[in-house]
Amino acid sequence: MPNFKLRADPGKQDITITYEFNAPAAKVFKAMTDAKMISQWWGPRVYTTEVDMLEPRAGGQWRFINRAADGGEHAFHGVFHLVDAPKRIVQTFEYEGVPGHVSLESMTIEERDGRSFVTAHSVFQSVEDRAGMMQGDAMETGARDTYLRLEELLAAK
Amino acid sequence: MPNFKLRADPGKQDITITYEFNAPAAKVFKAMTDAKMISQWWGPRVYTTEVDMLEPRAGGQWRFINRAADGGEHAFHGVFHLVDAPKRIVQTFEYEGVPGHVSLESMTIEERDGRSFVTAHSVFQSVEDRAGMMQGDAMETGARDTYLRLEELLAAK
Repeated sequence: MPNFKLRADPGKQDITITYEFNAPAAKVFKAMTDAKMISQWWGPRVYTTEVDMLEPRAGGQWRFINRAADGGEHAFHGVFHLVDAPKRIVQTFEYEGVPGHVSLESMTIEERDGRSFVTAHSVFQSVEDRAGMMQGDAMETGARDTYLRLEELLAAK
Repeated sequence: MPNFKLRADPGKQDITITYEFNAPAAKVFKAMTDAKMISQWWGPRVYTTEVDMLEPRAGGQWRFINRAADGGEHAFHGVFHLVDAPKRIVQTFEYEGVPGHVSLESMTIEERDGRSFVTAHSVFQSVEDRAGMMQGDAMETGARDTYLRLEELLAAK
């Protein structure tokens, strides 16, 4: 996956991930805002994903649950600040396992020659919050996995 | 106003304001989530404030307009991630004059001996965004003004 890049400068409280998809922006955007498709790619491959809530519009809420084979669950939720198809989503993000720690995510898609260049930026409430979310390379591994799954899904459709 | 404190460490992308009110948390929280009251204290004193939208609940939207005597307008909007009366609000914030730059605000109220200790934390998408919002000491002056206005309103009621 040479086209997955994660940038997290030391001492800062944000993360930027870039990824390139061999699909037009409208197709990528749909996969990111459609409950049926999200359940097929969101999260690391070891989990199944349930879309408990998804209202992709300003003020709408979202909540996804990752479930492991042993029944362990990780739930995440937030609200949409902006949904501007097919190029930009701004939303909040909270992992319910560590409640009270919220991040702000903005995702932009730029289409060039039928390919989509995605930039996903997350800013945390503190440097410590970012470290907690990253946990060594667990978050990077999970993020790589989730983007690769999305790429596979887009290729299959 | 010895009890107003603004902290913005160099090179970071967040700001923390603390303020102490001589009023219980429920009263402060109400003033922060009631349209009629917000129009009486939100923003610097040189403006009037119109509450265009206010839905204080997770997923609710808010939009306020500051108007100068000469008719100049500054509008702001966002969505609520969490509204937990009378102690915590987490929301997004965007100044419509510089669209596309969003911050994440969390406000907590701790009550001790009938007084409210408010901590308002804002995290920006970049160090540059924070600098743009602070503009020298304009933001600090405005924030002081707005907290003082709220203090006066609470004392009058």
